[in-house]
Order: sequence, then C-alpha cells, then structure tokens
Amino acid sequence: MNSDEFRKAGYRIIDWIADYRAGIEARPVMAKTAPGDVKAMLPASPPQQPESFDAILADLDRVVMPGITNWQHPRFFGYFPANALLSSVLGDCVSTGLGVNGLAWQASPALTEVEEVVTDWLRQMLGLSEAWSGVINDTASTSTLVALLCARERRTEYGLARGGLQAEAKPLVVYASAHAHSSVDKAALLAGFGKDNIRHVAFDERYGMRADALAQAIADDRAAGRVPCAVVATTGTTTTTALDPVAEIARVLAGTGIWLHVDAAMAGSAMVLEECRPLWAGVERADSIVLNPHKWLGAIFDCSLYLVRDPEHLVRVMSTNPAYLQSTAAGAVTTYRDWGIALGRRFRALKLWTLIHLDGVDAIRARIARDLDHARWLAGVVAATPGWRVVAPVPLQTVCVRHEPPGLDGEALDAHTRAWCDRVNASGVAYLTAAVLDGRWMVRVAMGAPTTERRHVEETWRAMQDAVA
Amino acid sequence: MNSDEFRKAGYRIIDWIADYRAGIEARPVMAKTAPGDVKAMLPASPPQQPESFDAILADLDRVVMPGITNWQHPRFFGYFPANALLSSVLGDCVSTGLGVNGLAWQASPALTEVEEVVTDWLRQMLGLSEAWSGVINDTASTSTLVALLCARERRTEYGLARGGLQAEAKPLVVYASAHAHSSVDKAALLAGFGKDNIRHVAFDERYGMRADALAQAIADDRAAGRVPCAVVATTGTTTTTALDPVAEIARVLAGTGIWLHVDAAMAGSAMVLEECRPLWAGVERADSIVLNPHKWLGAIFDCSLYLVRDPEHLVRVMSTNPAYLQSTAAGAVTTYRDWGIALGRRFRALKLWTLIHLDGVDAIRARIARDLDHARWLAGVVAATPGWRVVAPVPLQTVCVRHEPPGLDGEALDAHTRAWCDRVNASGVAYLTAAVLDGRWMVRVAMGAPTTERRHVEETWRAMQDAVA
Repeated sequence: MNSDEFRKAGYRIIDWIADYRAGIEARPVMAKTAPGDVKAMLPASPPQQPESFDAILADLDRVVMPGITNWQHPRFFGYFPANALLSSVLGDCVSTGLGVNGLAWQASPALTEVEEVVTDWLRQMLGLSEAWSGVINDTASTSTLVALLCARERRTEYGLARGGLQAEAKPLVVYASAHAHSSVDKAALLAGFGKDNIRHVAFDERYGMRADALAQAIADDRAAGRVPCAVVATTGTTTTTALDPVAEIARVLAGTGIWLHVDAAMAGSAMVLEECRPLWAGVERADSIVLNPHKWLGAIFDCSLYLVRDPEHLVRVMSTNPAYLQSTAAGAVTTYRDWGIALGRRFRALKLWTLIHLDGVDAIRARIARDLDHARWLAGVVAATPGWRVVAPVPLQTVCVRHEPPGLDGEALDAHTRAWCDRVNASGVAYLTAAVLDGRWMVRVAMGAPTTERRHVEETWRAMQDAVA
Repeated sequence: MNSDEFRKAGYRIIDWIADYRAGIEARPVMAKTAPGDVKAMLPASPPQQPESFDAILADLDRVVMPGITNWQHPRFFGYFPANALLSSVLGDCVSTGLGVNGLAWQASPALTEVEEVVTDWLRQMLGLSEAWSGVINDTASTSTLVALLCARERRTEYGLARGGLQAEAKPLVVYASAHAHSSVDKAALLAGFGKDNIRHVAFDERYGMRADALAQAIADDRAAGRVPCAVVATTGTTTTTALDPVAEIARVLAGTGIWLHVDAAMAGSAMVLEECRPLWAGVERADSIVLNPHKWLGAIFDCSLYLVRDPEHLVRVMSTNPAYLQSTAAGAVTTYRDWGIALGRRFRALKLWTLIHLDGVDAIRARIARDLDHARWLAGVVAATPGWRVVAPVPLQTVCVRHEPPGLDGEALDAHTRAWCDRVNASGVAYLTAAVLDGRWMVRVAMGAPTTERRHVEETWRAMQDAVA
C-alpha cells in the first residue's frame, strides 16, 4: 500500500471512526455474539492474494463489529472505564503512522523527551511533588510487577546480581488488602514470592486496609523469621473504590525499609481535583505509584503511568547495556528501556500530549468532577428507593448496589443479583459488572465514559429497575 | 472533541502521515537533535485551556519531528527493523478508534476471537504444526519473561502456589548462548534466578550455541547439585543473526524436562519462506517460541507473537479469576488475560488482520525474499572490496562489516569503526548500528525496511565508503 492508497483508505477509516463514535449510542453496549460466532465468520487460512480495502471495511462491519462491547458508549458502566477521548485517538494515530521505536534515546530522541515532559505534566496535574519521576508502561499489571521487583531487589540488596531470590535464606513477604486488585497477587507470584508469602490484610467497615492489622501481620512474620518486603496500598479498589489509609500505612512502615507501592490505577485520575487529594494523603511517603491515564483520565489504552522516587534504583534493577543498544549520547539522556521490562517502546506520550493540549487541564478536571457528581446522584436515588441498597461507601465514581426483595437471601439473592445484571447487559441498554462483596454478589455501576451525561445514568437506573420488575 | 471535529482533524492526520511516508526519503534517517533540544521547546507545565488543532499540528512539525529517527526510512539499517506497513497502520488506527479493552472475552468477543484466528494464520504462514497456540504480547522481552516463568513453574511443580522460588532447596539454572539477546538475561534476573544461575554457553565459529558445551554445562550444574531449568535457543541473534542449532539442543534436552524456548523475535519472520525453515529445524520440539511480527513481517509495533504447546500450563501459571472479571461464557472461550502478564489488552490483532488481508501472504513472502537478496548482494560487494571485510556469516538479512585499513588494529581499529559509523549516521544518509563481536567493534547493516530497494542499499554502501575516505 503506497501513500496515496493509504490517504484514500485512511480518510475512510477516519470517517468510519467518526461515524462509529457519533452513532455509538444506538448500539447495544454489550456484544450479543455467542462464543465462536466471530471465529466462524473468518477464513481458517490467511489470504495468499491481497483483498480490496472495500472488502476489509465491509468485514469490519459484518464480522468484527457485532462482537464489540462498546467501551466508549455513554451507558458503559462495566469494570472500570477505559476511555479513549478522540483528542487522544489523534495522538495515537500519529504514533502509529510514525512507526518509531524508542529502545534508545537516539532511536528517536523526541519519543524519550516528550515522555519526560508529559509525565511531568501529569505529576503536576496530580499535585505531586517534584520528587517523583515518571515513565509510561502498558498496564498497571506491569507497573505493579515492576514495583514488587524493585521492592525485592532493595530488600535483598540486589540479589539478582548474585544468586537471585532463590538464594535468600529467609522468605520475603508482600502485604496488600484483601480488596487489592488481582494483579497484585499475580505480580507477587510472578516475582517469585509464592502464595505462602502473600498476606491479605484485614479491612475495616469501609473496605480500606486496617493499618493495625498490617502492623500485626508484619510483627507476626518477623517473629516467625520471615522478612517483610513490600506493601501495596490501594487508592480506589476495584470492587468498591475503597481507599487504604496511605498515611497510616506509611507510619507503620517508617524506618523499616519496606517498600510502599500505591495502586491508584483507576482512582488516581481523581487527584487532578484538589478536593480529592485527601483521599490519598500520605502518598508522598510511598516509593512508587501506578496510575492509568487510560482509565479515567481519557488517554487511549494502553497508557499506565509509573512514578518512582528513586529512578536510579529502578535503573539498577532493570538495566542491561549491550553494545548494540548504546547511544552516542549516553549519560546525558534518559534511557527508558531501563525503567521497565520491555525493550521496545511505542511513542505513547503522543496520545497524552494531544489529549492534554486539545482538551486542556480545566476540561479534564470538569469531566472528572461531573462523573463524581453522577455517582453521588445515583447513590442517592438508589438509597431512596425501597428494595434497593447501596452496599458500599461511594467515595469516587463507582456505586455498588443490590436489589433485595423481601424474603430473598443467601444463594437465592445471589442468583437474583446475577440474573438482573445479566438482563441489563443482554438488553444492550447498559453494561454493568457484578462482583462479590462480603461473600455476596452485588452490581457495580462505574462512571467514567467520556460521553456519559446525567440522562444516561438515569436511563441505566430505569433499566436496572425494569430488570427486577 | 466531538465526532465532526475529529473527522476534520483526522483527515489532516491521515494527510500528515501520508505526506510523511511519501517524503520520508528526503529526511535525514537519524535525528540530529542534541540531548534536551526537544524538551527545551515544550512548555514546562500543562496547558489549562485547550489549544487549537492547528497549533498542535504545527508543534508536531516544529518540536517533535526534528527529534525523530525515521525507522520507516528506506535507508534505515539500524538495530532490527520495526516495520509499520501502511496496511497495518490502518488496522491499528481502527483499534485506537474503537477504544475497546479485551480483559475478558465478553469485554469484546471479537478482540479475543480475531486474535485466535490471526495468530493461527501466522502459525500456518510459518509452517508450524497445529500443536501450537498463539497469543499477542507487546514485546519479546515480555514473551521471553513469560517463557522463563513457565519454565520455572513447570520445574518447581507450581512452586508459586506454595513458597515461591525462594522456597526451592536447590538453585534453578537458565542457559543461553553468549550471543543471546540482552532481554534473556533480563528476564532470568527478573524471574528471580539470579546472575549466578545464568549460563552463557560457548558458541562455534558461526556464533551458534555449541550443543556439546550446553550438555557439559548442564552436567556440571547437576553434579554441583543445581537444577537445570530452561534453555533459550536463538534463531537469529541480534549481533550477527547467528542460529543456535535447535534440533541438536532439543536432543540434549530430550527427557530432561528442561524447558526449551526459541527466541526467533526477528528472524522468525523469515520462516514464511519454506527455504528458510531448515534454519530452525527442530523447532517443533520446543516448548515456546517468540516471534515479533512488528519487526520484519510488517506489523506496526507492538506485536509480539508468543507460541506455546501447552496453553493449559501457561494459564495455570498466569491465571487469576476474581469475581469482577468473570465472563458469562467462561469455559467456552479463550481468556487471553491468563496467557500473559497484562490484564488489559489492546485489539492488536486488527493490525495483523489488515496487514495480511491488504498485502496477502505472497507479497509478504516476496518482501522477505527481497531483503535476503539485498543482504547477499551487500555481503558480496563488501567482501570483494579491498580494506573491507564481512566479519560474520550472513544467513539472513544482516551484514556485519568492518573497514580494516592497513596498520590499524586493537583500540585504534575500534575507534575508526565507531567513528565511521557515527559519520554515516550523522550524515543523515543512512542509519547503522555498531556492535561488538569477538571483543572488537564492527558495524551491522540490518535490512528490512519495507521501502528499501536495491538503490538504497547501494547508496548506503557508497556512504560507508565515503565515511572512511
């Protein structure tokens, strides 16, 4: 495909995206395909000869689109938002069109330097001090794995340069709330700590980690000859957006050398609002933070901001320096490949650059504030409606609800909950995610899609009520 | 930004990309910016108010582009190619515009199912048996880390579910050629094996791993009470595209339970040509393979294909299953989040889907064959020119050369080599990467940019000769 063919096809792709976004509200939110439906429509073998662009575009509509759950739909309230504002889409398309790889500074100096600047813009937007340095990873799963690897290597004084984790005499232990995200356990397991050395710390009635229980768990492990290594504090858990008390946790860890990682993957975006910052008070005492601008802030996935206080330590854990990757400018420049796991690096900073430039910080703040307001509104009407209950505090943009008809409890109530959630999703009107809280199923309504207005929340609330009628 | 504004801006981005690609040959290949140049032109703080699209586009040209090293330039011969064919760019733009996240099957069934189909197309294109199942990761760094984690967990019988690697009584050992990519050592260190337990196996005169040396290293470790765990065989090393003898290595490992991972990140693309397949003979006996379609095959970065023979084992190592991620269709579908590290997943299969559809397999094969031919041609003329030497075999698309003026050797020769390579790069005519082979610097000329024709190789060869004149 040459440039001219690309230009013609590219216009049509832009039209296709523009039309898709403009008409998204008319689509069902959740895909209605059954397992295997999409696969069955695709050829089992790759085409030997080129097909026409028209044919591809037709297949996109005929084969792919019925199997799309529309995350940018104004009534998408599932999981956590993964926003892709059109201002950010443009920057990512530029990155794709450029096709450069930032595996070394001189492999595209602008890739490194725009990332340095834009991650610092984010730091400022979040109200963090100049002590923090940022890098963009793909996902929070990766950022948290990097954090636990850094914790492991600080505790073992760079055991990786000797016999590795397997040479440690005493087991290292990782702590997180029982409400921490599944990626925390996964990262600890992949980093080699082992399930026996992961502690799920007890939580309080607001589902935040109990600092006293953490202190006790650490003391118990020490008494048993184990070595406390890292604590992951969550700012905005996945199930209920609960907030672990970062300042209290930091006090427990003071002087111990235990790594403190703050997982603010979703809720960190709220910190662009000054009034939200008390929710992670104490964050300046952490060693690392993860915050995904691709969730609530509006950057197209994937874009996970990993912030550290000691980039030299990070580089010491992650660096390799083979001859074929050395830059002529080494020493004077940032070498981001040594700030994470992947060697190859996309020009991800561009999607933040266009997002922040084209929208401006004020508009981003206003959108986050609007979503908080939507959540408060929904929580209010649910709480005021007989038979319905808001089952967890609503500090942010997620409302956890249950419909509790008289006489239903236990597994019957669970079946009812999952059934009405499935009915809402199958209706195509809205997309919600069921989850387990205190051993019982409930339904999460997570605000944050860029186009969600009050009427969409109202329509969804009606669909929820219809689903139990 | 609404759909209409996006449409207008999007056309201009498409024009910008088309013009960039059409005019790329007139640009210097390597960026000429000095450290800090780009950063100095960017505002230190994020804009509070939106800026115009015109201003952004102007900044793209004024600030970003001087700092771009043009990987898609027909005279880009640095590192390894990271191709971004325009047919693939279109698919990635669709993915960006859709803004969906494949963290569960029902979060967009098409994302999972197109990935299943397209990775199987790749398997067929490479001539691999039906025993292999594929998944797309970001980079080979990640794929190789996943491979070593799987090796670790098979050897320890899922130690992660107990005390982790730190509970193992005897140290586990990883083996790779001294010419393996830096990401192999990095993966072994991150996985907790420790530097003391990484063996750099001796290589032969063609820089391929010596299977007898591997067998001896394994025997020595066993005798010392250590546990051989994994071997990484490289098909196409980074320095010289040397080929470890996979079949011989597999024979050494037969019946030992030692994991065999084949790193064919770059050279694997050559296996679309039947005549190249003897280069990785024995690959069917491996446990895992990594192959990056974003290198030589033409898919826009990032797109790393990880192939496994035992997906159930992979899932057992990687899976988490919290309530909030469960699909209504669980069991009947593939859950790709359990095939790798990251939970969130882009719709990466689209860029392969449009690439393979719009180009067709025959054209992809022809392009790879053309690049092999370019390399053979360059190796021939270099070898025939007094003062120049091809310093390593050329089994694939990379030619390793040295200019050896009479009387120059040792560090003086190294200084000469690096100086002429820098001169070529600074001239803007071509981009080459210097590397160390047998303790001496040499220069790699790695073919593979999609637009590279014979004349570009000729022009580069003239620039190399000019640089030493």
